[in-house]
Amino acid sequence: MAKTKSSLQPLAIGIDIGGTGTKFGIVDRNGNLLFSSEISSRNHSEIEGFINELFEALLPMIEDAGGSGRIRGIGVGAPNGNYYSGTIEYAPNLIWKGIIPLAKLIENKFQLPTTLTNDANAAAIGEMMYGAAKGMKDFIMITLGTGVGSGIVANGKLVYGHDGFAGELGHTIIIPNGRLHEGTGKRGPLEVYASATGVKLNAIEVLNNNNEPSLLRNVPLEELDSKKVYEAAIHGDKLAREVFDYTGTILGIALANFVMFSSPEAVILFGGLTKAGELILKPTREHMEANLIQVFQNKIKILVSHLRESDAAILGASALVWEMKS
Amino acid sequence: MAKTKSSLQPLAIGIDIGGTGTKFGIVDRNGNLLFSSEISSRNHSEIEGFINELFEALLPMIEDAGGSGRIRGIGVGAPNGNYYSGTIEYAPNLIWKGIIPLAKLIENKFQLPTTLTNDANAAAIGEMMYGAAKGMKDFIMITLGTGVGSGIVANGKLVYGHDGFAGELGHTIIIPNGRLHEGTGKRGPLEVYASATGVKLNAIEVLNNNNEPSLLRNVPLEELDSKKVYEAAIHGDKLAREVFDYTGTILGIALANFVMFSSPEAVILFGGLTKAGELILKPTREHMEANLIQVFQNKIKILVSHLRESDAAILGASALVWEMKS
Repeated sequence: MAKTKSSLQPLAIGIDIGGTGTKFGIVDRNGNLLFSSEISSRNHSEIEGFINELFEALLPMIEDAGGSGRIRGIGVGAPNGNYYSGTIEYAPNLIWKGIIPLAKLIENKFQLPTTLTNDANAAAIGEMMYGAAKGMKDFIMITLGTGVGSGIVANGKLVYGHDGFAGELGHTIIIPNGRLHEGTGKRGPLEVYASATGVKLNAIEVLNNNNEPSLLRNVPLEELDSKKVYEAAIHGDKLAREVFDYTGTILGIALANFVMFSSPEAVILFGGLTKAGELILKPTREHMEANLIQVFQNKIKILVSHLRESDAAILGASALVWEMKS
Repeated sequence: MAKTKSSLQPLAIGIDIGGTGTKFGIVDRNGNLLFSSEISSRNHSEIEGFINELFEALLPMIEDAGGSGRIRGIGVGAPNGNYYSGTIEYAPNLIWKGIIPLAKLIENKFQLPTTLTNDANAAAIGEMMYGAAKGMKDFIMITLGTGVGSGIVANGKLVYGHDGFAGELGHTIIIPNGRLHEGTGKRGPLEVYASATGVKLNAIEVLNNNNEPSLLRNVPLEELDSKKVYEAAIHGDKLAREVFDYTGTILGIALANFVMFSSPEAVILFGGLTKAGELILKPTREHMEANLIQVFQNKIKILVSHLRESDAAILGASALVWEMKS
């Protein structure tokens, strides 16, 4: 019997390189993840060794998917990935230092056209094609993880800026002369308040500034994270709620500023912190609205990504392939 | 003799509606202002009366330019002008209140296709076609006048946002819980520090916080403006220089945040405050650089518009015509 038409549709490879692990898979145009797996990002101090391992892991998947003739290309999301140059540049969380011509190295090894962008941009494209931003032409994606990443879509296209580095919203200054960001040496950027590390620091600050009892006082410092704060908050712990209120206050001001920049239809939030649900969303929404001028009030949606966290990164990276010029 | 080809090139009408006066003219594709004039924006409490006066003033110009057959269309810049709807909405500085379908009214009267946008967006298009941003695909225009306006170009296109209201950078919060903006009720937006009013308030603050002598102490409060501060500063007045340093500190933080959003090739500054030259540009540049993460440092230009202030608004508005779809 002849193969059905859908089985011959082109496929894309998505690769998401993180500081610890690299996830990859083969995705069809509808966002179905047909095959996927993961390797460590830390096994090879030389990038070539890493790419060889990636190739060995993907080869059987490519065969199972019908051979490399069906693969339209490879999309890669990586921290500090530059869309224009195809390089990763001085990524603090990766073991390969300096400027790495990642897209070219992968393209040469796989003999498939390869596009690279940073991980948050890849997530934004994933949301636009398969997620909460489906059909939107103007939105902002904010990833609230270890750090705060962002991808901005305007007029239906990712905003890369003149050099490919646009969308570093986690580094915008929200509190001038505020808390120190140890990685950058800057004071008061969003990332030191609204990331995983930020929430921990917010919790320490709230606990130090109050004498009231709190469940959080029993948590050893090294275990204090947004999950612990969440658990305390849903048990009615007053200070735990204050931690989310404070985090939401800062995030809300930041979102108001972003909205007044590009007037997105929605802000899509993604990552660990969003698991706190309304505990973080309510103060964020309130402080965003309070800092918006009238023309923007009560019309910008704050949405939480509904893509599975483990799949979203691969989907987003693979979606880059459908954006390729040809 | 047959007319030369260039004399038959299409022309555009540019109209810039300000709170006090409305400037208009006829412009060719190279940005030559062939005819121009001005009427008051305050003579008619009904918008129809205003449009009739505008029509009567433009009619002889259109005839002199070769008749309306040569006019490709009309571009209008106005405060709170919305590109998508062609309306001006609740513009605080205009005498016509509520939502005015300005583009449609002008189109009906002149029988020419008409496009409207806000004044800062029009200025950005003018800079891109004829000014300091010529050839750039990614830049940010900041107008430092009575207020602070902005137009953002990314991927070669104006960022309008989902509703046409993008680019309200003057209202982004730079100092949370900072100085009150009387027009919006918000605290700490850029506009209360880096506009004409802002500089005056900065001067009052610097004078009140210091006991040192200053030439500015002899200036009556109602005459205190950025020109007076400039004059004192070039005479070596220490506190006058502090006023510009403070203004530049705030503006520099704001520009750093804008750069980390869209990574523009340049920020173009326009308006009265730029007349202070390096007195304002130097601290602005320093504080922008100090708040940028490494990947953006020492590569974003801060440029001052070199278009004549009186022409720029008309040029920018007329340039909208060449962007029209049909």
